[in-house]
Amino acid sequence: MAMRIVVLAGGIGGARFLLGVRAWARGHDVAVTAVINVGDDVTLHGLRICPDLDSVMYTLGGGADSERGWGRAGETWTIKEELAAYGAEPSWFGLGDRDVATHLVRTRMLDAGYPLSAVTEALCARWQPGVRLLPASDDRVETHVVVPSSDGAGGEAAIHFQEWWVRHRGALAAKRFVFVGAESAKPAAGVLDALADADVILVAPSNPVVSIAPILAVPGIREAVVAGRAPVVGVSPIIGGAPVRGMADRCLAALDVECSAAGVGALYGSRAGGGLLDGWLVDTSDAAAIVPGVVVRPVPLWMKDEMATEAMVREALTLAGVADD
Amino acid sequence: MAMRIVVLAGGIGGARFLLGVRAWARGHDVAVTAVINVGDDVTLHGLRICPDLDSVMYTLGGGADSERGWGRAGETWTIKEELAAYGAEPSWFGLGDRDVATHLVRTRMLDAGYPLSAVTEALCARWQPGVRLLPASDDRVETHVVVPSSDGAGGEAAIHFQEWWVRHRGALAAKRFVFVGAESAKPAAGVLDALADADVILVAPSNPVVSIAPILAVPGIREAVVAGRAPVVGVSPIIGGAPVRGMADRCLAALDVECSAAGVGALYGSRAGGGLLDGWLVDTSDAAAIVPGVVVRPVPLWMKDEMATEAMVREALTLAGVADD
Repeated sequence: MAMRIVVLAGGIGGARFLLGVRAWARGHDVAVTAVINVGDDVTLHGLRICPDLDSVMYTLGGGADSERGWGRAGETWTIKEELAAYGAEPSWFGLGDRDVATHLVRTRMLDAGYPLSAVTEALCARWQPGVRLLPASDDRVETHVVVPSSDGAGGEAAIHFQEWWVRHRGALAAKRFVFVGAESAKPAAGVLDALADADVILVAPSNPVVSIAPILAVPGIREAVVAGRAPVVGVSPIIGGAPVRGMADRCLAALDVECSAAGVGALYGSRAGGGLLDGWLVDTSDAAAIVPGVVVRPVPLWMKDEMATEAMVREALTLAGVADD
Repeated sequence: MAMRIVVLAGGIGGARFLLGVRAWARGHDVAVTAVINVGDDVTLHGLRICPDLDSVMYTLGGGADSERGWGRAGETWTIKEELAAYGAEPSWFGLGDRDVATHLVRTRMLDAGYPLSAVTEALCARWQPGVRLLPASDDRVETHVVVPSSDGAGGEAAIHFQEWWVRHRGALAAKRFVFVGAESAKPAAGVLDALADADVILVAPSNPVVSIAPILAVPGIREAVVAGRAPVVGVSPIIGGAPVRGMADRCLAALDVECSAAGVGALYGSRAGGGLLDGWLVDTSDAAAIVPGVVVRPVPLWMKDEMATEAMVREALTLAGVADD
């Protein structure tokens, strides 16, 4: 029977990691399911936008702009210019023409009553990612960032993650993150079954605070990971005290967590201690990292190409005991 | 006090005629209101599309593609290609990228609860058409075409006007036209006041069956035109037995109306006889046309440029008795 790998992942980092997982899987008898963060999802100009799902779908489908790091290759920006000419807000979001077509198809299907998981499957019929993509939830789980209110009176305001990151470029000091809707959200169809049937669960080197945490915040998902029979191995998104990309440092600061491989490992925590991890891959430069109760293995973590990422994935699977060294 | 002109108009023909009305108005103290057909409006890919309002708005705003005859100048087709790549239907509608931005702004405002008339005003803040544009109705008045059913069993099927015209290129024999929703529709805010206050009402050389008739089908509009104090002068869309552009010939055939300047004039009918018209402009080549009870005046009707169209408008206004010869 095929080995079953489940990966918890966010956007770009998750997408690149999944390229390595898929590469490894192609050489073996393996089915891969990726459970993707939906906390970044947002409705703009009436369009439902799912940045992490799309990053993964475009990347695995060969349609991503790998230089810019997000959105579609060969993208054009006519719609964005036209919306600006109408004075339609917000104008700070990078809404490419090709991307808009994806959002139109998605929004129309959602409006027709299809759950996001079914919409994602329909979109993937075009992209053929080679990996089963599941949103963490079909319900709204929206990451908001609590920041100082702009009136300077010492109060607080909560803004959508996209507004914090894209509009303000993460410059506003984040006090905390709130996953709006998480309490009443349910795991998307297929997520709990995938976790229950998994032979191994990998946590991609995605942002622990705004990519992985919103997945685990959906009631039932963390429990399924922790209680399942599959070993759980994470990959550090921090190398040498800095995030490989993105704003994990600013997010970790809001939680008073040290921005280091050891810090993130401890944030996830050992499974024995009620946390998530059995194993934790850190970069060779972080070989001294210790996470109590977790087997830490230093390996090269730079995903400089698919082959390097595949090697990293093999190390994770070996650490989990499901692949030979 | 400024003279008040109200024009009943459809899309392209109406837009070009309005260029002439605006040109004439600029030399005088005149306020122009155009009441535009909404029967062509359609929702595709979740976007609310108003072809006639947009044709007029783009044309008067200097953003229309005058060679193609519809849509935006400098249009690109990325969205259309992408939707086709997803297999999203329908694929037969020409949905340009620039155009999509207009539809996004409109759809979002409609979803937020604004009536189409308010949305049109908002869009016109960008385009500055120099003419007040009013949709005939804020309600749904949708032209459907009754055609033979495709199973060949002798039955009938009703399809949206856009499907008949754009998808089938008008090749299916139209049995009749139905204005879905017209019975319960109300004139858009401002329409009845404009008609009551008008010094003259012009019927643009638009398709009488699918552009002008759906306007008049909104309860209250025909009555306001007929009962008002303003003289009503129409301009024939038929020159020498053929429509200047479009499918008026096929539409008139469905009504058993002769495709001629006299035929369309008689279809509108004389005001004295319970119809619409006081005066009727026909092309000089149709000088022999007679419409019982209506003053017919032959003048050059080819709108080959704005100056020629302005001259035509002056003739219409002169015939109405509101401009000097």
